[in-house]
Amino acid sequence: MALHLAHRMAQIKESEIREILKVTQQPNIISFAGGLPAPELFPIEAIDKVQHLVLQESGTTALQYTTTEGFALLRSWIAKRMNSRLGTSFDQDNILITHGSQQGLDLSGKVFLNEGDVVLCESPTYLAAISAFKAYGCRFIEIPTDENGMDMEVLEQTLKGTPHIKLIYVIPTFQNPTGKTWNLEKRRRLAALATEFNVAVIEDNPYGELRFEGEDLPSIKSFDKTGQVLCTGSFSKIFCPGFRIGWIAGDKNLIRKYVLIKQGTDLQCNTVAQMVIAKYLALYDIDEHIQKIKTLYKDRRDVTLQALEKYFPDSVQFTRPEGGLFTWMELPEGTSARELLLRSLEKKIAFVPGGSFYPNNPKENTLRLNYSNMPENRIQEGLTILGQLVKDYLKDGAEKMS
Amino acid sequence: MALHLAHRMAQIKESEIREILKVTQQPNIISFAGGLPAPELFPIEAIDKVQHLVLQESGTTALQYTTTEGFALLRSWIAKRMNSRLGTSFDQDNILITHGSQQGLDLSGKVFLNEGDVVLCESPTYLAAISAFKAYGCRFIEIPTDENGMDMEVLEQTLKGTPHIKLIYVIPTFQNPTGKTWNLEKRRRLAALATEFNVAVIEDNPYGELRFEGEDLPSIKSFDKTGQVLCTGSFSKIFCPGFRIGWIAGDKNLIRKYVLIKQGTDLQCNTVAQMVIAKYLALYDIDEHIQKIKTLYKDRRDVTLQALEKYFPDSVQFTRPEGGLFTWMELPEGTSARELLLRSLEKKIAFVPGGSFYPNNPKENTLRLNYSNMPENRIQEGLTILGQLVKDYLKDGAEKMS
Repeated sequence: MALHLAHRMAQIKESEIREILKVTQQPNIISFAGGLPAPELFPIEAIDKVQHLVLQESGTTALQYTTTEGFALLRSWIAKRMNSRLGTSFDQDNILITHGSQQGLDLSGKVFLNEGDVVLCESPTYLAAISAFKAYGCRFIEIPTDENGMDMEVLEQTLKGTPHIKLIYVIPTFQNPTGKTWNLEKRRRLAALATEFNVAVIEDNPYGELRFEGEDLPSIKSFDKTGQVLCTGSFSKIFCPGFRIGWIAGDKNLIRKYVLIKQGTDLQCNTVAQMVIAKYLALYDIDEHIQKIKTLYKDRRDVTLQALEKYFPDSVQFTRPEGGLFTWMELPEGTSARELLLRSLEKKIAFVPGGSFYPNNPKENTLRLNYSNMPENRIQEGLTILGQLVKDYLKDGAEKMS
Repeated sequence: MALHLAHRMAQIKESEIREILKVTQQPNIISFAGGLPAPELFPIEAIDKVQHLVLQESGTTALQYTTTEGFALLRSWIAKRMNSRLGTSFDQDNILITHGSQQGLDLSGKVFLNEGDVVLCESPTYLAAISAFKAYGCRFIEIPTDENGMDMEVLEQTLKGTPHIKLIYVIPTFQNPTGKTWNLEKRRRLAALATEFNVAVIEDNPYGELRFEGEDLPSIKSFDKTGQVLCTGSFSKIFCPGFRIGWIAGDKNLIRKYVLIKQGTDLQCNTVAQMVIAKYLALYDIDEHIQKIKTLYKDRRDVTLQALEKYFPDSVQFTRPEGGLFTWMELPEGTSARELLLRSLEKKIAFVPGGSFYPNNPKENTLRLNYSNMPENRIQEGLTILGQLVKDYLKDGAEKMS
């Protein structure tokens, strides 16, 4: 007789993207699937030196338990960084270190969501945010989202007409999956609406440091006068993901609640990893490192966009991100990116079909392409093949229709 | 206007033990409070070498994302270790790497508990397990527990008479907080009852490797024919806690559910930490290392028990653990260990009052003493002072009564 699981388990399915990532571990596959940083830029030698220093200077501290809040020097660095780049006014007590920014989403679900509560999100939105919040039994309402962010009229009407809205979840800069960035006016307006309707905003920002062109914009948090907005951040994309160190930042009283809930969840984050990152930040120039990442990713984005122009039919649309890791493609209406994926995996090409990025109403004719993880020649090669596959797929579809 | 939090947040309070731990970071305090391993035994030089090797040999893998399940070599080592020590028959697919064994408890709550479900536990039980499960809105029923484990008659009657029991949570070996160990018969009986009533058992085992005397006993899992029992384990007490690497083990179908739920929770554990521990296990003799820990802790336990005999009044009772990190003290009925703590903190002595280890019915005349973290002379000194404080406290109480 099977054990009785919680109701939520009926909602939790295998993540398509994680399963595809397993396929992509085969060495000869050309993968546009994962959101993986370029491993050749990981500062291995520097980390090696820094790890050694941390263990020699403070080994017994680094290997021992620490506080739930996290390593003070690291929290303090994050606060200053956010203040200078995002227009916040934080100190270390506004920051909780989390196990990747993903844990910030899980803890947000735990802090805010009762079963049946509502989360508003962009359409499409980050796949693993859907999983994180869904575990707390919420419903989602997708707010239509264009090149400049959420449709503020629809958002306001939804806030007016819907009970039990607890969270508005957004990724306003180089969004995952679309690569789109919200404009200034929508950022300001969202903060005002959050205050007016007394709803919390989770401003997820793992990619904001990776701008290739255009001007940095102030965060939604910078327009927040009432403590409605929480921001997540991560070292995964500007340093490396293997350490699983991210953070959530916000109003001190609210962060205190997150600390309490994290205590019962996993006590604290990895002490060594926190001290190693703090030491790296003290001894090395992270801005110089981030510049290297941006230069590389810009080149890869350029090659990607050029190949999309050249090898893909005109009926296919794609975004032109100013930063981050992804571009987003829309095939003609009525097509299925899942069908295309089956064909492309036969040719050893992987990507993520877009349907999973919609909590309620999947647009199956969409797909996400990552451009950060592979060298230019592989991107070229992969997109040449994928472009032909798309043409063939659309032609077969047209023949079936006629 | 304050934001509306989830109902569960009304139940989540500051953890007394974590707050006391903050006080104990003052250098001149003698602390019996935390469950901290002896830092002087952390294999710093070995870890330093191993970290270097991992980065040199496989830096780009170690710093990159990996699978949710965890590093295969490490999972395989854990399966073999459990098979040889605990009588299980696992392979790597029975093992999920977790962010400390604490995360195994949180994920168990997420997989099994609906609001209003019931968790059965020992009385007293592990403080942070109460926090972990409580976040999912469960109720607790404490099962009376003596020197040899839970009262099996009461357990059976409770299983018969109570709807919505989802989990039985136990720490059968060198329990936290009491140091007690279940006998063989109760282990066997619990597995049988779990099958009979189709309830899951979480067998939490962070201390089982640290036996100073007596014979190792088979795990509850070894008597489980139907896949009801899940086991947690941890490298925190046999290696070091700073890496936050633990595991949960069980039936493969059930572990697959845990993997799915962990994906949305935090994607995966720290890749570097997993590879460093796996490399250490390949290059060094962990049994030799554990033997060093056991020798040191046995001496510290002996000094503790001798001091308790010598400096404490006869009206005080305490346990004589055969392993692990803690002894448990009962003061005479009607006294309060919290009051005693206020007096002892003035003398720079810390411990954890026992009340917090009971989810429903605190026995305030109890307290937990850790003996793993301090050298013998500090233990001696601290218990001499604490013994006198107890005598004074009981005398003051007696005078008030008369």
